[in-house]
Amino acid sequence: MNATAYSPGLEGIIAGETAISTVGKKGRGLSYRGYAIADLAAHATFEEVAYLLIHGELPDQGEYDRYRRRLMGLRTLPAGLKSVLEQLPASSHPMDVLRTGCSALGTLEPETAERGAHQVADRLLAVFPSMLLYWYQFHRTGRHIDTVTHEESLAGQFLRLLHDRPPIELHRRAMDASFILYAEHEFNASTFSARVTASTLSDFYAAVTSAIGTLRGPLHGGANEEAMRLISRFATPDEAEAGVRQTMASGGKIMGFGHRVYKRQEDPRSAIIQDWSRRLSEAAGDMRLYHVSERIERLVREEKGLCPNLDFYSASAYHLCGIPTNMFTPVFVLARIAGWSAHIIEQRSANKLFRPTALYTGPDARPFVPLDQRG
Amino acid sequence: MNATAYSPGLEGIIAGETAISTVGKKGRGLSYRGYAIADLAAHATFEEVAYLLIHGELPDQGEYDRYRRRLMGLRTLPAGLKSVLEQLPASSHPMDVLRTGCSALGTLEPETAERGAHQVADRLLAVFPSMLLYWYQFHRTGRHIDTVTHEESLAGQFLRLLHDRPPIELHRRAMDASFILYAEHEFNASTFSARVTASTLSDFYAAVTSAIGTLRGPLHGGANEEAMRLISRFATPDEAEAGVRQTMASGGKIMGFGHRVYKRQEDPRSAIIQDWSRRLSEAAGDMRLYHVSERIERLVREEKGLCPNLDFYSASAYHLCGIPTNMFTPVFVLARIAGWSAHIIEQRSANKLFRPTALYTGPDARPFVPLDQRG
Repeated sequence: MNATAYSPGLEGIIAGETAISTVGKKGRGLSYRGYAIADLAAHATFEEVAYLLIHGELPDQGEYDRYRRRLMGLRTLPAGLKSVLEQLPASSHPMDVLRTGCSALGTLEPETAERGAHQVADRLLAVFPSMLLYWYQFHRTGRHIDTVTHEESLAGQFLRLLHDRPPIELHRRAMDASFILYAEHEFNASTFSARVTASTLSDFYAAVTSAIGTLRGPLHGGANEEAMRLISRFATPDEAEAGVRQTMASGGKIMGFGHRVYKRQEDPRSAIIQDWSRRLSEAAGDMRLYHVSERIERLVREEKGLCPNLDFYSASAYHLCGIPTNMFTPVFVLARIAGWSAHIIEQRSANKLFRPTALYTGPDARPFVPLDQRG
Repeated sequence: MNATAYSPGLEGIIAGETAISTVGKKGRGLSYRGYAIADLAAHATFEEVAYLLIHGELPDQGEYDRYRRRLMGLRTLPAGLKSVLEQLPASSHPMDVLRTGCSALGTLEPETAERGAHQVADRLLAVFPSMLLYWYQFHRTGRHIDTVTHEESLAGQFLRLLHDRPPIELHRRAMDASFILYAEHEFNASTFSARVTASTLSDFYAAVTSAIGTLRGPLHGGANEEAMRLISRFATPDEAEAGVRQTMASGGKIMGFGHRVYKRQEDPRSAIIQDWSRRLSEAAGDMRLYHVSERIERLVREEKGLCPNLDFYSASAYHLCGIPTNMFTPVFVLARIAGWSAHIIEQRSANKLFRPTALYTGPDARPFVPLDQRG
């Protein structure tokens, strides 16, 4: 066995260059293309942020209007994709539905010289809510829903198709801010997997399909769903404190805390979504989940020294917007497709095949023994 | 901009440990679980090798018989998957069909406590030829083929479903050897992407779906198809020499030569598949492609100092077995699923999330400008 040192999980290893975002750099916090995340979440719309990530600059008024109109025009599902979605069982993990739908769309509308990366990026951004909710409503109500609406924003479109009614304005704004927070985060596992796939010069859909499958895992996108399962177990802050103390004492992991990159620093996105969670709770006249969350946060900070990450207060915020728990990770996809698209385009612009090496720990050379002489 | 050095494409960077294979290590060559690739290709069957990769040891007679019977019993496509495959257009890239089919199967037969990693690995190994050729024959002939046959080997099953007749024994043996050569290759890009996806604790199908999408690219699995397009352009070795000289002079890349890991060393798999290409050519009484390939090999060695890799002589060998060129990369999937499965199981056995970092090269912090004050 070779004794070369290496960093498991590539922790702290630079795997490439990016101009899209900075994460956890000293004195910089989190920024997209140089703009601080707090400014974007407070003052921009998700569509402005998606444009910024993919095109490198914020749109002017004309660019913004054209972009929103283009996205609104790309919400229709092709008939073949509807048929595919109808074959996926009601019991499917919704992430598997998006993974399969994205891959199937790659056969129906393949990337070509005419339909290039930017066109596919726009299409996926616009059509993922349609894909997810067509499948969801087909199995829940038996209806073949029309995915074309007058909602101008992706957040509004998502809530409209989910609830089949015009969204409450506060919910739409909360989801819009959440989409901004979830849109991009440097070389996280799903974005990294998109870049690895893109690095063989495979097609755009293949890279996004890899990213969806990677985001699905409980150590990545699944964490917001785990956080919801945690907070919904408790009726009061006192119950939560007792329950979480017990979980920690038995060595269990509390989902929604700590982060590979931020380590013990604050995740700059957490305070923003916490504020939305509080506002949504106040508007609903139901502070239970918020107070339970606050108590768990205080306890985990004191006992473990860990800060909440974006996933923790997203759980209560999403619940208050009426989103079913198993749709929390798919919501992450609807937003992160903006970052993934920017990274796939950036990877192609200065491509180098990702092909690391491995430390061999297996058996020494051994002679082959024919089948009839074994055992 | 941070000045930290890094290795683009993670070249030479150790990304993890593996006991499955060694590649290009001094004095070791390529071995699977300690067995030299030349011994395995000469004396084992692909099913023995798949068992070795996934289970760690060669099977004894009883284990081997049970394994082959089990795989033979897993060739049926569920009705829902047939419907999905029928929706994918005749013009689809066959790799996109396998990517979509694998992802869809993950919704129809999800990984669970009862249907664990080894069961899913067996199922995918057995069913990929059915998936690929059901779709192919449906569009080519309009028939809904029965994917259950009496062929005992995966190589025989593939050729049988492709040609709709019992395979020629020499072709079956050549494909079996080729499957062994393509079964595993350490941390190549597709296997690495499977491990990145698996590292979030996502499901088995997600990891394989990422791997298929990554293998699809022309810098990875697509190279054997590119090699075929190259050699089929020439009627004689002299024509080939003139044509390839011209391509090299204009800076074009000759596919099927050189390798990230072997660098300028021989790829130990090349001589083995070259020998099969020669035998198939002799049996067919048609040495044209073989002689063209030999001349190109000699020229690229002399002019560029590059050795052929596995993909180069695989092109003529596959063509002589009657395989359409756009099915060369899918054949790679049918074999490499053995290695991918072994790596997914190994990754889970000592998991660490893959989350590298990036060198930021983007704009410095800048103030947000509201939409109505831009441009």
